[in-house]
Amino acid sequence: MSLATIFLSETVGTAMLLLLGGGVVANNILPKNKGNGTGFLMVNWGWGLAVFAGVLVSYKSGGHLNPAVTLGIASSGAKEFVPGIPVGFASIATYIGAQFLGAFIGAVLCWLAYKKQFDTEAPAALKLGVFSTGPEVRNYVWNVVTEAIGTFVLVFVVLAVGKFTGQNPTPVANLGWLGALGVALLIVGIGASLGGPTGYAINPARDLGPRIAHAVLPIPGKGASDWAYSWVPVVGPILGGVLAGLLSNVLLP
Amino acid sequence: MSLATIFLSETVGTAMLLLLGGGVVANNILPKNKGNGTGFLMVNWGWGLAVFAGVLVSYKSGGHLNPAVTLGIASSGAKEFVPGIPVGFASIATYIGAQFLGAFIGAVLCWLAYKKQFDTEAPAALKLGVFSTGPEVRNYVWNVVTEAIGTFVLVFVVLAVGKFTGQNPTPVANLGWLGALGVALLIVGIGASLGGPTGYAINPARDLGPRIAHAVLPIPGKGASDWAYSWVPVVGPILGGVLAGLLSNVLLP
Amino acid sequence: MSLATIFLSETVGTAMLLLLGGGVVANNILPKNKGNGTGFLMVNWGWGLAVFAGVLVSYKSGGHLNPAVTLGIASSGAKEFVPGIPVGFASIATYIGAQFLGAFIGAVLCWLAYKKQFDTEAPAALKLGVFSTGPEVRNYVWNVVTEAIGTFVLVFVVLAVGKFTGQNPTPVANLGWLGALGVALLIVGIGASLGGPTGYAINPARDLGPRIAHAVLPIPGKGASDWAYSWVPVVGPILGGVLAGLLSNVLLP
Amino acid sequence: MSLATIFLSETVGTAMLLLLGGGVVANNILPKNKGNGTGFLMVNWGWGLAVFAGVLVSYKSGGHLNPAVTLGIASSGAKEFVPGIPVGFASIATYIGAQFLGAFIGAVLCWLAYKKQFDTEAPAALKLGVFSTGPEVRNYVWNVVTEAIGTFVLVFVVLAVGKFTGQNPTPVANLGWLGALGVALLIVGIGASLGGPTGYAINPARDLGPRIAHAVLPIPGKGASDWAYSWVPVVGPILGGVLAGLLSNVLLP
Repeated sequence: MSLATIFLSETVGTAMLLLLGGGVVANNILPKNKGNGTGFLMVNWGWGLAVFAGVLVSYKSGGHLNPAVTLGIASSGAKEFVPGIPVGFASIATYIGAQFLGAFIGAVLCWLAYKKQFDTEAPAALKLGVFSTGPEVRNYVWNVVTEAIGTFVLVFVVLAVGKFTGQNPTPVANLGWLGALGVALLIVGIGASLGGPTGYAINPARDLGPRIAHAVLPIPGKGASDWAYSWVPVVGPILGGVLAGLLSNVLLP
Repeated sequence: MSLATIFLSETVGTAMLLLLGGGVVANNILPKNKGNGTGFLMVNWGWGLAVFAGVLVSYKSGGHLNPAVTLGIASSGAKEFVPGIPVGFASIATYIGAQFLGAFIGAVLCWLAYKKQFDTEAPAALKLGVFSTGPEVRNYVWNVVTEAIGTFVLVFVVLAVGKFTGQNPTPVANLGWLGALGVALLIVGIGASLGGPTGYAINPARDLGPRIAHAVLPIPGKGASDWAYSWVPVVGPILGGVLAGLLSNVLLP
Repeated sequence: MSLATIFLSETVGTAMLLLLGGGVVANNILPKNKGNGTGFLMVNWGWGLAVFAGVLVSYKSGGHLNPAVTLGIASSGAKEFVPGIPVGFASIATYIGAQFLGAFIGAVLCWLAYKKQFDTEAPAALKLGVFSTGPEVRNYVWNVVTEAIGTFVLVFVVLAVGKFTGQNPTPVANLGWLGALGVALLIVGIGASLGGPTGYAINPARDLGPRIAHAVLPIPGKGASDWAYSWVPVVGPILGGVLAGLLSNVLLP
Repeated sequence: MSLATIFLSETVGTAMLLLLGGGVVANNILPKNKGNGTGFLMVNWGWGLAVFAGVLVSYKSGGHLNPAVTLGIASSGAKEFVPGIPVGFASIATYIGAQFLGAFIGAVLCWLAYKKQFDTEAPAALKLGVFSTGPEVRNYVWNVVTEAIGTFVLVFVVLAVGKFTGQNPTPVANLGWLGALGVALLIVGIGASLGGPTGYAINPARDLGPRIAHAVLPIPGKGASDWAYSWVPVVGPILGGVLAGLLSNVLLP
């Protein structure tokens, strides 16, 4: 296993994640879609199954797809991400770089799949909403808290399964269909339960990569990319993920 | 395995349960949420996946998270809760104490995740509804019956799986992703099928712990905590759980 | 294994099926319920997970819960239902008798869980709808066709899995959580896909047992039990199940 | 294993797919159905579970049910479809021929199950919609793009699981309940995430076979079969499937 393979695997997996994750939001909120107005539960399932597909195609790297997961595993004291890839600056940078690149690519693919819907007249906030999250009540401190709690749940449960199965630190992809299903259901649950206030980015790459895509793509009537909020879904998830890594050794003895 | 580990495991698991379980209700019923008004099926999935996450992080203690499960296993005649932890007054008190503490902590975390939504003007009944259950038709006798039947189903099926797999009495966490999925689906089903009249507490800790949190937290316009009803989701589930334990030896020979 | 055990197992499992299956309909259509008006998808999941719970508690008998399944397995040429229980008049009568008894008991339990909702004023057709199915367009020939097709799918897929795994004829309960999940999902799918015209009884006991309960229980304003339709969800499912058994040897070589 | 067995297996599986897949659309959009108006999420689950049932009954041939899957596997360089069936013109023609025949048969069975609903007055577009897909914004180039992307996801993930498990190229049916569940969830996810613009045919047989059935069946007020669009859900999925096969060797090293 080389860092190049890790990079390719995480790029492909995170692109899959954003293609499907952005897609379900587009389907729900953009006009002229079969699923327009279906509601939040479809969005929850869509994102959960986006992780499902993303994890399945990035099994070589353990299916992180998320800098908060990578940093959470690192802060838990793990020695290797996958066999042959020690935790360290080079590997962390490889994972996170690929995740941002993949998220950007996935957002572009999502835009292509929904090209004619993006060309249709719709409020700018909805067009941005396909790419990036935004809060229902804008309050940076509490928005960070909500994102941190949601991400804590994700990373903490993944680390718990790793400890339980003895496949620490990333048991997800090792288990194939079943491991991918487990993580998918976790995402469905976090979305339904903690996604109300901020739309559950719980992943810096998932939010910032597509926001850059939104800024550069030629979308009619797309409006601003809300850069003022863009740090919240980066900082909150990193805080939550690192906290989960640190506390996993205390609360999961 | 020590009682201290049991206590920590059940506290962490039940806190996870209430964070996510309370969260999905908040998302559904409090204003200014992405999922506001999504409906009962999202709530069913949210609570089911809250159990999913809770069981996965409390695998050391078997993932009871519920005094009715603990008492049901005890009344079934089981000798040990998990290897090394005999059924007895000390272990039962440890499980149940941790469950109430965890439920309280989880409710506080849920309030933090939805802080700005709780600060928004909304009917007091909705704010209480995030923490604790209440009946659609208030009739203490029949509300107890409904809660007892729902809890009977939960404990009876868990004990049946234990007998079937030979992993009596708590096979749940032993099976990892799959066992947690099984219990999660059971909760989704009980909620959809038996949650109509009373909101399916089916767990004394899940209802009373958060009710105490509701009473003490500084929530604007929170109203009363409806203590007159508070005994129903305690007594009903205990009756149902113990009955399931006793009848499991008759009906699952 | 004795026929008495088979009888107990199928009675318990079918009672569980009808308690939860009737329950989700009550929650959806009777007034004063948390889930009132949630819709058909909740009903699909509710019935699927009712089978899930029913199969898990009737593992000793293979979790038929349905005369059409029992007769379908018999008509496929199977020698035994479960090890030690040869296919024959006595065993078939035991299975089917228990299924009808269990369905009656489950319907009574469902009524108890929703006692105050049944006491509330509501159209008689809704109160009957909790117990038994009825067609959207009443046409006995085509209603039989729809019920036969739906039941064919159920029995045919179950027999296919049995052939595939070599655990012919009833692999369901042998597989624990996973087998129960598989059958549950099959029921969710049949309900969503073929439940529109007649409400997918696809099980003679599921429809006739509760119809008898409806006729005898003291429900205010319950109206008639629609005996004119009662033979359709008996004959249709039996036709479909037997046809699936016969064709399984041709179409699943 | 003979080509005749392959043909029978794919015919049966694809008929099952279209019976259930067409059925859930009929239930959702035709009047006088229990599930009328339930929405897109029910349709997503219905199609996913249609694949679930279809794969389970076509385990002998690997459960392709889709020319884009067959061609995608072939273009990935696989040597055999299933043990004893080499990839070649004869086997590809057998698979695809059976898929079209099965899709036609399944559409006829779906029409029989919903006979009285098809006889009810309803817009012609809805009656066609049960059989075949159509775009929300008609633009042949972009409709092809959307269909190609959706099918790429399907074939690419299936090939990834094959590589991961070492059961290349069709691990699906080999895994029984779990493999069928995995593919089913993938279809739910693709539908929710990429089904908005065109209704996710992602399968030439699924669209063209039933369109022929629509053209020949005696359905009152059925209107035209929209042959102008009929090539889109053939060409798009084939492009996507073949691209997935080719790129699988580059992106999944």
